[in-house]
Amino acid sequence: MNNLYVQLKSRFWSPYQDLVRETVLPYQLDILSDNIPGSEPSGAIRNFRIAAGLEKGNFTGMVFQDSDVAKWIEAVGHALRQKRDPDLEVMADKVIDLVVAAQRPDGYLNTYFTIQEPGNRWTNLMDCHELYCAGHMIEAGVAYFLATGKRKLLDAMCKFADYIADTFGSGEGKIHGYDGHQEIELALVKLYIVTKNTKYLDLAKYFIDARGTDPNFLRQEWESRGRSSFWGWYKQEEPDFAYHQAHKPVRDQQVAVGHAVRAMYMYTAMADIAQLTCDQDLKAACERLWNNVTKRQMYITGGIGSTSHGEAFTFDYDLPNETAYAETCASIGLIFFANRMIRISPRREYADVMERALYNVVIGSMALDGKHYCYVNPLALWPPANIQNPDRKHVKPVRQAWFGCACCPPNVARLMMSLGDYIYTIDEEKGKVYVHLYIGSEASFSVGGRKIVLIQDSEMPWQGRVKFRVALGEGPVNFSLALRIPSWCADTPSVRVNGNLLSIASVTTKDGYIEIERTWTDGDVLELDLPMRASFIVSHPQVRATNGMVAIERGPIVYCVEEADNGANLAAIAIDTHAQLREQRCDVAGVQAVVIDVDATRRDDSAWPSDVLYRPLNAETESELSSQIRAIPYFLWGNRGSGEMAVWLRSQTCR
Amino acid sequence: MNNLYVQLKSRFWSPYQDLVRETVLPYQLDILSDNIPGSEPSGAIRNFRIAAGLEKGNFTGMVFQDSDVAKWIEAVGHALRQKRDPDLEVMADKVIDLVVAAQRPDGYLNTYFTIQEPGNRWTNLMDCHELYCAGHMIEAGVAYFLATGKRKLLDAMCKFADYIADTFGSGEGKIHGYDGHQEIELALVKLYIVTKNTKYLDLAKYFIDARGTDPNFLRQEWESRGRSSFWGWYKQEEPDFAYHQAHKPVRDQQVAVGHAVRAMYMYTAMADIAQLTCDQDLKAACERLWNNVTKRQMYITGGIGSTSHGEAFTFDYDLPNETAYAETCASIGLIFFANRMIRISPRREYADVMERALYNVVIGSMALDGKHYCYVNPLALWPPANIQNPDRKHVKPVRQAWFGCACCPPNVARLMMSLGDYIYTIDEEKGKVYVHLYIGSEASFSVGGRKIVLIQDSEMPWQGRVKFRVALGEGPVNFSLALRIPSWCADTPSVRVNGNLLSIASVTTKDGYIEIERTWTDGDVLELDLPMRASFIVSHPQVRATNGMVAIERGPIVYCVEEADNGANLAAIAIDTHAQLREQRCDVAGVQAVVIDVDATRRDDSAWPSDVLYRPLNAETESELSSQIRAIPYFLWGNRGSGEMAVWLRSQTCR
Repeated sequence: MNNLYVQLKSRFWSPYQDLVRETVLPYQLDILSDNIPGSEPSGAIRNFRIAAGLEKGNFTGMVFQDSDVAKWIEAVGHALRQKRDPDLEVMADKVIDLVVAAQRPDGYLNTYFTIQEPGNRWTNLMDCHELYCAGHMIEAGVAYFLATGKRKLLDAMCKFADYIADTFGSGEGKIHGYDGHQEIELALVKLYIVTKNTKYLDLAKYFIDARGTDPNFLRQEWESRGRSSFWGWYKQEEPDFAYHQAHKPVRDQQVAVGHAVRAMYMYTAMADIAQLTCDQDLKAACERLWNNVTKRQMYITGGIGSTSHGEAFTFDYDLPNETAYAETCASIGLIFFANRMIRISPRREYADVMERALYNVVIGSMALDGKHYCYVNPLALWPPANIQNPDRKHVKPVRQAWFGCACCPPNVARLMMSLGDYIYTIDEEKGKVYVHLYIGSEASFSVGGRKIVLIQDSEMPWQGRVKFRVALGEGPVNFSLALRIPSWCADTPSVRVNGNLLSIASVTTKDGYIEIERTWTDGDVLELDLPMRASFIVSHPQVRATNGMVAIERGPIVYCVEEADNGANLAAIAIDTHAQLREQRCDVAGVQAVVIDVDATRRDDSAWPSDVLYRPLNAETESELSSQIRAIPYFLWGNRGSGEMAVWLRSQTCR
Repeated sequence: MNNLYVQLKSRFWSPYQDLVRETVLPYQLDILSDNIPGSEPSGAIRNFRIAAGLEKGNFTGMVFQDSDVAKWIEAVGHALRQKRDPDLEVMADKVIDLVVAAQRPDGYLNTYFTIQEPGNRWTNLMDCHELYCAGHMIEAGVAYFLATGKRKLLDAMCKFADYIADTFGSGEGKIHGYDGHQEIELALVKLYIVTKNTKYLDLAKYFIDARGTDPNFLRQEWESRGRSSFWGWYKQEEPDFAYHQAHKPVRDQQVAVGHAVRAMYMYTAMADIAQLTCDQDLKAACERLWNNVTKRQMYITGGIGSTSHGEAFTFDYDLPNETAYAETCASIGLIFFANRMIRISPRREYADVMERALYNVVIGSMALDGKHYCYVNPLALWPPANIQNPDRKHVKPVRQAWFGCACCPPNVARLMMSLGDYIYTIDEEKGKVYVHLYIGSEASFSVGGRKIVLIQDSEMPWQGRVKFRVALGEGPVNFSLALRIPSWCADTPSVRVNGNLLSIASVTTKDGYIEIERTWTDGDVLELDLPMRASFIVSHPQVRATNGMVAIERGPIVYCVEEADNGANLAAIAIDTHAQLREQRCDVAGVQAVVIDVDATRRDDSAWPSDVLYRPLNAETESELSSQIRAIPYFLWGNRGSGEMAVWLRSQTCR
């Protein structure tokens, strides 16, 4: 990955990294260690102690509880890469010692099977997440090695991966199978990149290619264990192969189906492999699935997964707001997928989606205290319904302290701490430096053998003004800076180099990036201004749920309206889309944000007799009150108590 | 019940009765007897054969399978009351012989417990429907006796009821409990009315009064059987008492909660008892619950139950269209409840709701062939979503041939065949004859000792013109004809007696009924004209789901729009509510109906690039096409293939 190193220095994002480093990571370790009185016991650390023979007892938690520890170590790795922190490193070293102590002599590592079912390794890959947990621990080993140079976990994970490679594959005597929850594939690619050992890339490719082929491995496995399921309540005539994206070979998959996180992790690995092996066929599958996800099945917030049943995709244009799932982990997976598609070929749309998911679902999933999280990211809340109507109970009107199935919070932590990895890519061959995200940072990398430092200063997400300063140890160097022009950009952007306005007509634009090629001198400054303006957004007419409705966006930020500003019954509001959107800077729950006021009418409750549910429409009695509505950034929802919230509002339809 | 006897002679309704008599009842008996190849085995008749010792085998079907047979016998009873039919009577006599043969010597009757768990009678009232099945068989016995005078089943059910009275009650050694599914209560009231034995009324009253009192019987029972549930998948920390309306004493219940059918059957019995025992407290509870159901939790079609989870009520104003449950049996129960509220005191609103449920959900639940039924009555269909999105899978886009849980079809049959019972009530004391429904029929009854025949001829539901002819065997008789003026009535109605227009100002109007008191002579003719006009309907602004939308009604008929007439993507339509609703008579799936055409605009798909899901609102690109939309009576939906359907449509909101 070149020798790119990026350190965040962002007024907007660094506080999130500080929050994760100072609050979230220590808090999460306390959770994993069962040190928080009153919270649901995690047992995750204790499981490793038991598996390592340091304690007696039974396994606690979900069958994939190990992955919480892995994600925590990975997040610490990313954190230490950003900034050394001896206390955090000591904590992580101890956890790693424990993890490695729990590893079996042959390399196998999984506390559930070690403690509860030692004889049953690899007997229920469909349900039991063994390779999923392996993948997360491999990612942890890689991240911790990259940050600290310490090889202990990395080496242990190579040993585990070697053992997995001996166990799975097309060779005789091996299991011709794959995991029910994809994750090992993308992890093995990371392990390959760090170790250069092609065995790991080949194994990742095996898992991808074997998936969904005939005879179906998951069906055979299910038959051979007597059609039983690990999940007691899970009664089906036959397993739902599409849930696991194992209904057909991945290259034949036309649309995104099944569990959204599984899908994203798989597509990420597919894109990795397509890039690393120049597999055009696989690349075409990735593009097809990318298009389906982002142009047919993605909420405006970057959320994916239209149903809580199976945390899954449904079908094209089915994006109901009230019952949306939009799991945090799925949007994080979408960011991984976008990042890998960028590596195949940088196109604006990939970074647009990455930015959308990041500035809306991902940061919105965490409360400002860093200790409360969303698993489901609501598009619409009506708290009494979210409490009393079972169809909407999966959507919680307030963020939760922790979860029995705690996948999301550590996933947010590891993404936040590795955010620097998503800003730039370098095309050394062409001497091109791509800027995908405008996030204040200091990046060092080399082009044509020359070391370059690029200091980015950004006013995002509140303004589109970005300044780049080039710092070179020695004399001038020629390279091209390819700057993404986001699709939200309201007008022609302006670019100044050392104060001189460039004619945009004179610069190359390709796939949504303007390319400023020149011989850069130490201290050169490039100023980019991406005009940002609030606007009403409408959805494709095939999206049944949002016809006749508008959302509001400004730059990468999606807005929402809350009961806190507008009173209850947001559905009674109809937005005047001909009136101006009035922006103002103001405090929302302690955050200085741009809020937006709009004119609207709202149906008048007071004119209705309380004992009439339906009545003929009558212009005289149907009074509509004039109203001004305030919209706030979506990611700040629910920080001022529980109440109604909506991203989409009815618009007045006449013109 | 006076000696009122009503025979339907209705151009609209008699064909439904003929369909039920000639097609549905024989077909249903074939289903119950497992004589329809390819259909899911019912086993209902076979269960009785096994319980009677005529066959060996295990119980088949739901634990309440007996009730299907009971409802069928009851429907046959009502059918024979309308018209003697020797073939049908022979069939029913045989079934009754079998049922009575399955009764235990002590009076107990339940094939599930007799076959599968002979030692476990009354050990799981919460889940196992023993008294529910008893109630249905009692209703069958009563109906069959009233139609044929045959006492065999009635006497057997008296014996069963006597045994139940010995088993349940407040006395020492008795079970201080009640059934998880209410039904026995209203059945015992019917048994009391026919037999005049107050023991049965007292027992009904006991079941009503015991319900939800402390200590909670259902909790005690659940504890005493080790907290197990009959339904394997049903895992709960504790039972959901509100589901059974057993969370508090019935007189303290403020709002409708839990399983909608259970609630309706209970409220019906409560109203029965309130009327028969002049219990003001219970009457107040009935009125409160009536108001909550019909003014807060009822769909415009007369459907109730906002969620499939527990087939239940949720809370005030929560009436989502896409995920509605609106079970057929619940609307039938609502008709029972309305009928009993009318018996307490005739008020227009009761009959309005009865008529709404009848002309929309109930007849809409049955396909025109009489062999396909809805369990769930959709307010909105988008077939791909109803097939592919699990949140909407309970709403079937086409009517189903039969059901594993087959409660609804025989319930429709028994209601259709007893429809005559809902048209009139007689207040003998005041010499008043109330007309609640305008359904062509011949009613005979007596007032002040004089036998009167009232022949009603009605053009409902297509026109509001109704003609009554009074036939008296002897000379004139004085009585008051109280005619309901439905709330849908668009203008002042006109009344003519023997061709002479009556000034409406000169007649008494009370609770929505105009009262024409006079001395009637044989052959007198009263003509009532209730002006009927299509109009747009809006919902209370607190109903989040339908803000900004309109429905169309004409008389008692709610309309819907279908893909068959209007193409797909009904959500793209916005109705011009200022344009005229144009009525015309036309054929819909073989039925001569009034259809309604309206002007609308619809969002233009063709103007959208297929690869864009969201984009800024732009007046130039957001083209709306002018369109004419056709609405058809809701009850005729889905008779022309599968497609989108919607009762509520977006309205253009500006004026």
